[in-house]
Amino acid sequence: MTPPPLPPIALQLYTLRRLGLPFETLVRRAAEAGYAGVETVGSHGLDAAAAGAAAAAAGVKVCSSHVPLHALEEDATGVCRFNRALGNDVVVVPWLPPELRGGSAAGWQALGRRLAGLGQRCRDEGVRLLYHNHDFELEPVDGRTGLAWMLDAAAPEDLGLEPDLGWVRRAGLDPVALLAPYAGRCPRVHVKDLAPADGREVDGGWMDVGDGVLDWPALLPACRRAGAEWFVVEHDEPSDPIRTARRSAEQLRALL
Amino acid sequence: MTPPPLPPIALQLYTLRRLGLPFETLVRRAAEAGYAGVETVGSHGLDAAAAGAAAAAAGVKVCSSHVPLHALEEDATGVCRFNRALGNDVVVVPWLPPELRGGSAAGWQALGRRLAGLGQRCRDEGVRLLYHNHDFELEPVDGRTGLAWMLDAAAPEDLGLEPDLGWVRRAGLDPVALLAPYAGRCPRVHVKDLAPADGREVDGGWMDVGDGVLDWPALLPACRRAGAEWFVVEHDEPSDPIRTARRSAEQLRALL
Repeated sequence: MTPPPLPPIALQLYTLRRLGLPFETLVRRAAEAGYAGVETVGSHGLDAAAAGAAAAAAGVKVCSSHVPLHALEEDATGVCRFNRALGNDVVVVPWLPPELRGGSAAGWQALGRRLAGLGQRCRDEGVRLLYHNHDFELEPVDGRTGLAWMLDAAAPEDLGLEPDLGWVRRAGLDPVALLAPYAGRCPRVHVKDLAPADGREVDGGWMDVGDGVLDWPALLPACRRAGAEWFVVEHDEPSDPIRTARRSAEQLRALL
Repeated sequence: MTPPPLPPIALQLYTLRRLGLPFETLVRRAAEAGYAGVETVGSHGLDAAAAGAAAAAAGVKVCSSHVPLHALEEDATGVCRFNRALGNDVVVVPWLPPELRGGSAAGWQALGRRLAGLGQRCRDEGVRLLYHNHDFELEPVDGRTGLAWMLDAAAPEDLGLEPDLGWVRRAGLDPVALLAPYAGRCPRVHVKDLAPADGREVDGGWMDVGDGVLDWPALLPACRRAGAEWFVVEHDEPSDPIRTARRSAEQLRALL
């Protein structure tokens, strides 16, 4: 049996936000830094034709998009059609304002059902909906994490997970253990590395992939078991965004 | 003699970026949180008429705008006219990619001259140019900070400073001492509070204004001596952006 191909590597464009560049330049920079794909942040103020032309000109695929929950709930069909027109069929809820977070098992379960309803609307448009975690979803509540309550309240086909491995580790959990119950449910994975505890005063505490404390040789196979089709590199506060993009791609490729 | 009026309070809209809201809603949220003004991040994808109408409808003034250096150098006139059309006459270089930073006294001085040239082009359009610091400009190089070399290489009317007091403190310097040489050169000041050293694992290490370690009763008069016409509240990583905006405005107002 031939092993499945290695997942390609994409860059979450949030990593480059400080540069203040237009989308056409951002995707070119991502391609130059060694990425086959990009994960967008909303529409970047463009229509689908312009965004698609820019990605095609740079030679990168849009593999997923982060879209705020309120924007998806206002117009799921429009968001999905925009992304399908770019050739992208994965949309991710990236974050939750505090008033929408669970707070209790019942609260997180209700949120899971709400997201599942949204995921069904996305599926009608041929788009898969994922949720991207930080640390706040990983706090224990009623004996489990908020994330576990939320995901268990939704069918996997209605709501997947884009695990952010750096945030999982920062929350004090073992990313390999966190991924175990979600085989096939994680088509996109955020690959993000964390500084040791005494090195968190710079760059928001994050490091280029391969430079930090995450155990990639153990983690990358676990990601593939979880269904990773794309590895998405992200760094929230790089002091040198282009260097981080390039170095993370090189080091991740060497680890694969 | 009547003392000069207290500077009004603005919100740097970067604080709310996680919410993923359109500009019209952002400025409304800022007004609701108690701000008389906002500091924008580029054009927010709008033309001047639309941005101006949104700010007017919300009842906030655009008091300044963060614009990346490359965008200003490509079209200073366009950036200035856009902002003048909004009633804003202060533009700020918010950050520098590493390849543009000084590295030596001569390097920072050259950068100061480069920014001064840009500042002259802005002045021709009736706009004042400022530079907003982080920590990297405050590292000692050839006996002084990069920031000091840079500012001393430019005439105050060509290049002002928007001191970020939270970053100054985070860099280990005393913000009151840093402001002392710049009387009249700091028409906008970033008011940002820093967590104690053992509390920096959450919210990027920042806190709502008044909750952290900065000595506001000493600092606010120093800001006014430095020429502050607006206090601009910013938080880089708030877990609850609206709460941070509201609480920071309330607590800053109580300190004034």
